[in-house]
Amino acid sequence: MRLSRYFLPVLKETPAEAQIASHRLMLRAGMIKQASAGIYSWLPLGLKVLRNIERIVNEEQERAGHVPLLMPTLQGADLWRESGRYDAYGEEMLRIKDRQGREMLYGPTNEEMITDIFRSYVSSYKDLPLTLYHIQWKFRDEMRPRFGVMRGREFLMKDGYNFDLDYEAAMVAYDRHMVSYLRTYERMGLQAIPMRADSGPIGGEDTHEFLVLAETGESEVFYDSAILDLKLADRAVDYDDAAQLASIRSEWTTPYARTDETHDEGVFAEVPEERRRTSRGIEVGQIFYFGTKYSEPLGAMVANEKGERVPVHMGSHGIGVSRLLGAIIEASHDDKGIIWPEGVTPFHVGIVNLRQGDAACDAACAEIEAQVAAKGLEPLYDDRDERAGAKFATMDLIGLPWRITVGPRGIAAGKVELTSRRTGESEEMTVEEAVTRLAAIYAGH
Amino acid sequence: MRLSRYFLPVLKETPAEAQIASHRLMLRAGMIKQASAGIYSWLPLGLKVLRNIERIVNEEQERAGHVPLLMPTLQGADLWRESGRYDAYGEEMLRIKDRQGREMLYGPTNEEMITDIFRSYVSSYKDLPLTLYHIQWKFRDEMRPRFGVMRGREFLMKDGYNFDLDYEAAMVAYDRHMVSYLRTYERMGLQAIPMRADSGPIGGEDTHEFLVLAETGESEVFYDSAILDLKLADRAVDYDDAAQLASIRSEWTTPYARTDETHDEGVFAEVPEERRRTSRGIEVGQIFYFGTKYSEPLGAMVANEKGERVPVHMGSHGIGVSRLLGAIIEASHDDKGIIWPEGVTPFHVGIVNLRQGDAACDAACAEIEAQVAAKGLEPLYDDRDERAGAKFATMDLIGLPWRITVGPRGIAAGKVELTSRRTGESEEMTVEEAVTRLAAIYAGH
Repeated sequence: MRLSRYFLPVLKETPAEAQIASHRLMLRAGMIKQASAGIYSWLPLGLKVLRNIERIVNEEQERAGHVPLLMPTLQGADLWRESGRYDAYGEEMLRIKDRQGREMLYGPTNEEMITDIFRSYVSSYKDLPLTLYHIQWKFRDEMRPRFGVMRGREFLMKDGYNFDLDYEAAMVAYDRHMVSYLRTYERMGLQAIPMRADSGPIGGEDTHEFLVLAETGESEVFYDSAILDLKLADRAVDYDDAAQLASIRSEWTTPYARTDETHDEGVFAEVPEERRRTSRGIEVGQIFYFGTKYSEPLGAMVANEKGERVPVHMGSHGIGVSRLLGAIIEASHDDKGIIWPEGVTPFHVGIVNLRQGDAACDAACAEIEAQVAAKGLEPLYDDRDERAGAKFATMDLIGLPWRITVGPRGIAAGKVELTSRRTGESEEMTVEEAVTRLAAIYAGH
Repeated sequence: MRLSRYFLPVLKETPAEAQIASHRLMLRAGMIKQASAGIYSWLPLGLKVLRNIERIVNEEQERAGHVPLLMPTLQGADLWRESGRYDAYGEEMLRIKDRQGREMLYGPTNEEMITDIFRSYVSSYKDLPLTLYHIQWKFRDEMRPRFGVMRGREFLMKDGYNFDLDYEAAMVAYDRHMVSYLRTYERMGLQAIPMRADSGPIGGEDTHEFLVLAETGESEVFYDSAILDLKLADRAVDYDDAAQLASIRSEWTTPYARTDETHDEGVFAEVPEERRRTSRGIEVGQIFYFGTKYSEPLGAMVANEKGERVPVHMGSHGIGVSRLLGAIIEASHDDKGIIWPEGVTPFHVGIVNLRQGDAACDAACAEIEAQVAAKGLEPLYDDRDERAGAKFATMDLIGLPWRITVGPRGIAAGKVELTSRRTGESEEMTVEEAVTRLAAIYAGH
């Protein structure tokens, strides 16, 4: 993409309404624009990151054997009356009447609707285990929306639901979700710690939240620093191997890690003092086992091996897709702007032409653009007639992890400069070397 | 994907509520489930086709140089008061009050919001031309939703908006849209004819609708059969070449083609009689030029080359993404089920194992699965313990264009059978030959 043909409305001023870094930087980098309180338009750069996050979530869910579908944003009130939640949910549910006077709502979550889909088609244990998920816009009418996409009202979420014959099978689904979530966050460059949590309005017995450590987090968290050393990295995971999944779950849930809601000073005191940490965290996901809480009232039953009709055991599992942009930026920025992890960056490399209009520089940039694209990577070429300082400032603000700088002196010597946004270090090399280096860096992403 | 692990709830019975083939077949093939009147859940198979259509639309829009962003589903009423449409729009607009009593609406279209985005950031002719688009769920509260996704209330649409300095530049954008739409429909295996149309509530001077010929179409259409011979095929299109775009537009708009709304018997009579056709058509897209209708009231002005502030010339251009599934099925099915064009098929090939549990057949199917995947194609392997007839019926119903059948006799002779869903013709060949053939078939898609 050439910047002269893109729509990247970066702001020079820091918007007064933004209280936290991610909100400020998303506005300044031209990623989002507020449409109404807690409701945002995703400008082109923001949409690219959102789609990257969505892609990673999809890939890891499909790898775990979970099946994607898509439920609508609007739901009828009747299903929610069956579960008893229509009256119980409170003012965060956006209630709507259509032209015929039918009561509807903008889905804040989908337990009822997915249970209805399940009960409509599945009647035998032979069709289990089954986990269905979708990534869809949801609405929660927050009293005080704030912090940009971190606490918006219209937000994109992945929510998945497992259907299993009994508690033991549902626990395998629980572990599958935990492991797939760990991998998902790692690919985004995030360290998200599973913490024992309260169940809240969805209702559950076993539940963990995933928290990213950041000063601006809404929760206070207490943990054993040993958990920070855990990595899935390139461990081979077999999602059909229940024992392996359980062992990974146990590895991550044995070290103490809890939010203020479940924190227990007595248990925390048993952690060696030098490993006891208190911090703040941003919730980026949650997994729940809630048994037959919805399958019983909604009649989602299957015949078991003996031919008896039993309610299925369910859980629901969510990842805050749009919120993750905020969390990633909170965890990865400096005073010049965003620093995207390679896994989610909107463009793989920025190309800065120091002398636009100079034949040799223009040709070199076009050549780099083509070579980068030939490796399956997407460059953003700043081809505007602007000062070098302004071009660097834009690249630093929007946070592409790598930049190639092309100037007349370097080109005369057959060299360009490859710069890491994270370290600020630059290295001179030929175009071929720079492209090869980039391909190697992104090979694992 | 293996069918035993998928969620494909095909129905044996024809649902009574479905009046047209596409609605019936989408329900029977387990593609959609009605959630409320005119509101559907997209089951896994339906979602895959929806995503394929979305991908083609995105690719062709980006190829035309149009920039994707994403506006929210809910909008504030205030912007619509600026354009005067809040009161004018009528009952199809779903109006909502949030917990603070603020008036909102579920967007039926986005002229106001995109104009607001434009006016917030762009102030000079130097940033033009600019075309922004998104693919987002919309809501129109139809009095009588019917025909499944063809006339639903919550529907997925691509809507794009061009911003240009003057009429001439806006006409180039108009032509760019016409050409990119022609290519989009062709890639989906559709012949969509641009027909001169009425402007309707968006308001416009130059406008064409794209109609797919089908008996169940809602509009009566009149056309010169010469237009059926026009194909873009692999013609190289340069979207920066205004003259080429205009010539393609002219090629497609010169033969008579109009809907009943703009039909003129006198002009039609000039078409040679043997080429005069009357039929019915399904609208799958529309392009509009409407000048300064929104930029004036909303104050979307830019400085021109003389430094004068002038309102931008705009147009809006839509493709009915979810509706296209219905249109494709209406245009491509038989009494056994759907026949997907290669460009949008949910899986590239079905694998039918005639003797599940037979070691040689199972091994051959697994091998085919792996070889097909290695070509970047996605197989659906029916690995259920079912009779051959049931497996064939499912494959015919869900409409994968190609099927590989594996049976014990063939395998003993080193052969499998490759069958075309469209012609029903089968051919025996080795696994390698079948895979090579499939790769060649899909190379252009």
